[in-house]
Amino acid sequence: MTRLGDLGEFGFIDRVRRQVTTSEQVIEGIGDDCAVLDFHGQTMLVSTDLFLEDIHFRPSAASYKDIGWKAAAGCLSDIAAMGGTPRFMLLSLAAPAGTNADDLEDFYTGYLAMCGKAGAVLVGGDTTRCQGGITIDSIVIGEAVDGRYLTRCGAKPGDVLAVTGLPGKSAAGLHAQENGHAAPKLLHAHHKPTPRIAEGQWLAKCEAVHAMLDVSDGLVQDAGHLTEKSGVGLDIDRASLPIGKDLEDYCAVHKLDVSEFAMAGGEAYELLFALDPKALPNLLDDFCKEFALGLTVVGEFTDKHEEVRVDGKTPRSGGFDHFGK
Amino acid sequence: MTRLGDLGEFGFIDRVRRQVTTSEQVIEGIGDDCAVLDFHGQTMLVSTDLFLEDIHFRPSAASYKDIGWKAAAGCLSDIAAMGGTPRFMLLSLAAPAGTNADDLEDFYTGYLAMCGKAGAVLVGGDTTRCQGGITIDSIVIGEAVDGRYLTRCGAKPGDVLAVTGLPGKSAAGLHAQENGHAAPKLLHAHHKPTPRIAEGQWLAKCEAVHAMLDVSDGLVQDAGHLTEKSGVGLDIDRASLPIGKDLEDYCAVHKLDVSEFAMAGGEAYELLFALDPKALPNLLDDFCKEFALGLTVVGEFTDKHEEVRVDGKTPRSGGFDHFGK
Repeated sequence: MTRLGDLGEFGFIDRVRRQVTTSEQVIEGIGDDCAVLDFHGQTMLVSTDLFLEDIHFRPSAASYKDIGWKAAAGCLSDIAAMGGTPRFMLLSLAAPAGTNADDLEDFYTGYLAMCGKAGAVLVGGDTTRCQGGITIDSIVIGEAVDGRYLTRCGAKPGDVLAVTGLPGKSAAGLHAQENGHAAPKLLHAHHKPTPRIAEGQWLAKCEAVHAMLDVSDGLVQDAGHLTEKSGVGLDIDRASLPIGKDLEDYCAVHKLDVSEFAMAGGEAYELLFALDPKALPNLLDDFCKEFALGLTVVGEFTDKHEEVRVDGKTPRSGGFDHFGK
Repeated sequence: MTRLGDLGEFGFIDRVRRQVTTSEQVIEGIGDDCAVLDFHGQTMLVSTDLFLEDIHFRPSAASYKDIGWKAAAGCLSDIAAMGGTPRFMLLSLAAPAGTNADDLEDFYTGYLAMCGKAGAVLVGGDTTRCQGGITIDSIVIGEAVDGRYLTRCGAKPGDVLAVTGLPGKSAAGLHAQENGHAAPKLLHAHHKPTPRIAEGQWLAKCEAVHAMLDVSDGLVQDAGHLTEKSGVGLDIDRASLPIGKDLEDYCAVHKLDVSEFAMAGGEAYELLFALDPKALPNLLDDFCKEFALGLTVVGEFTDKHEEVRVDGKTPRSGGFDHFGK
């Protein structure tokens, strides 16, 4: 027998995909941040996101409001990753009969606050009791306005790799939480991430942006999806990774490697994209004027090899496999 | 503190609903079988359905192919319940790392077979490991062709209540399974239910059909949703409930009350609807010509009271509360 954990998340998805049939209405099926569907001539984007107690969140470590916020944020970030506009959300919730209903109401308060901020409305879902921990599946339905969206496919040799914000902060927040360290800004980044929806829409309108996704499992691992889908290689320059003062201070105090957080830290919900370097100076300027958010070039796509290299070397596996042990 | 189990599924949903805002694009929000959404002038139907190991299925009692089939069937039945046409499915799956990947492939085979039969394609989802049992959330996106669909609201005093097929068979199959009784046809009804998609579409086109849902928690309990949403009462005639020879024989051998299965048996995925009695003879004829499936009148809506009565009496609570103990 093959254990799911040995096959890994991506190995398993590949096996399933072989069985799946498609239709003319499916523009992009399994394998990108969202499915892209033709619904009577409109471009619909759909994604789901599982969020499980003791795997993705711990009620002892975060308020139920923050857990709700983050459950919605993770799902909405899939729409941001393609430059789409979220419209509708559905929420499936399994919880033990003994769960405090007030806690779950707080969860919905946080969830709905994030939905409201993103301009999406909760329209349905399902509820059931369960025997294990609280299980949440969040579903988003959105659209690509004017049919414009970005996928993981399209990065060209010579394109640069750019990232929004500070992708290591969330993982450092988790580290602080697990080690009982005081780091309020990092903890905030971990508990209340903001999907880059407006930023994604803006980038999807730029002809010079060729491919995009969001950092959910770690920058290096997620960049690997861009290279794989685009059929190119990538050289990441470790020294260029954006760090930020909070993370730098935290790592200095606790003697940690800052670039590890920036390279392998998950749940960042920053956008990672391939960009024609000719557009670079203007795009950087315009983006920073439009959004109070940094944009950093961290690598360059190449046709000289087909993998992700950091400072010329193949990194050891970093990032998160959802079926991993 | 209020325990979720004490509040119950419907009590909890009512509390959550108070927090939910809506938009012009939401035609029907939380509270019906599907959400009904206006997507650029097209009527979109969306639903999700949780399917949990040891709550909704047991791998020791059914093949993984059948489990997959049923996971898809339950979700597709929500579209059937409104007379819609399913188009796209998404599947979120949480499973322990030690799960046999071959079993899960069988699960997908069954799931995809049901999708294919219903004319829907799998376009995405999410996968993650978990610590408890296998957790499945199935999502369906469909549409109401020509904008025609039925909700739980619209039953009028004087309308009759009709049901397709034999709603007690699935529950009797579960009974047979749990008691180790041989009853292959009842077991088949339990493990491989067929959502009434074509039948639902046909009924949604009839002006005389005023309200509809599918039997998922038990006929009497589900009929209560029709009376509640339509603001009318209902008198069910116990003797008129369709039973079928398999169920009759099974109950005779094992000294069980046949009508209990027909009244309270869940997961039947038959359609239950309110119908103008003037249309009755023709509609019965036409339906039976179109489909190899029975249709039975089992009650009448009334304005003399506001509850569901069986043979003039209020039944003790029958059916399934998803947060119940």
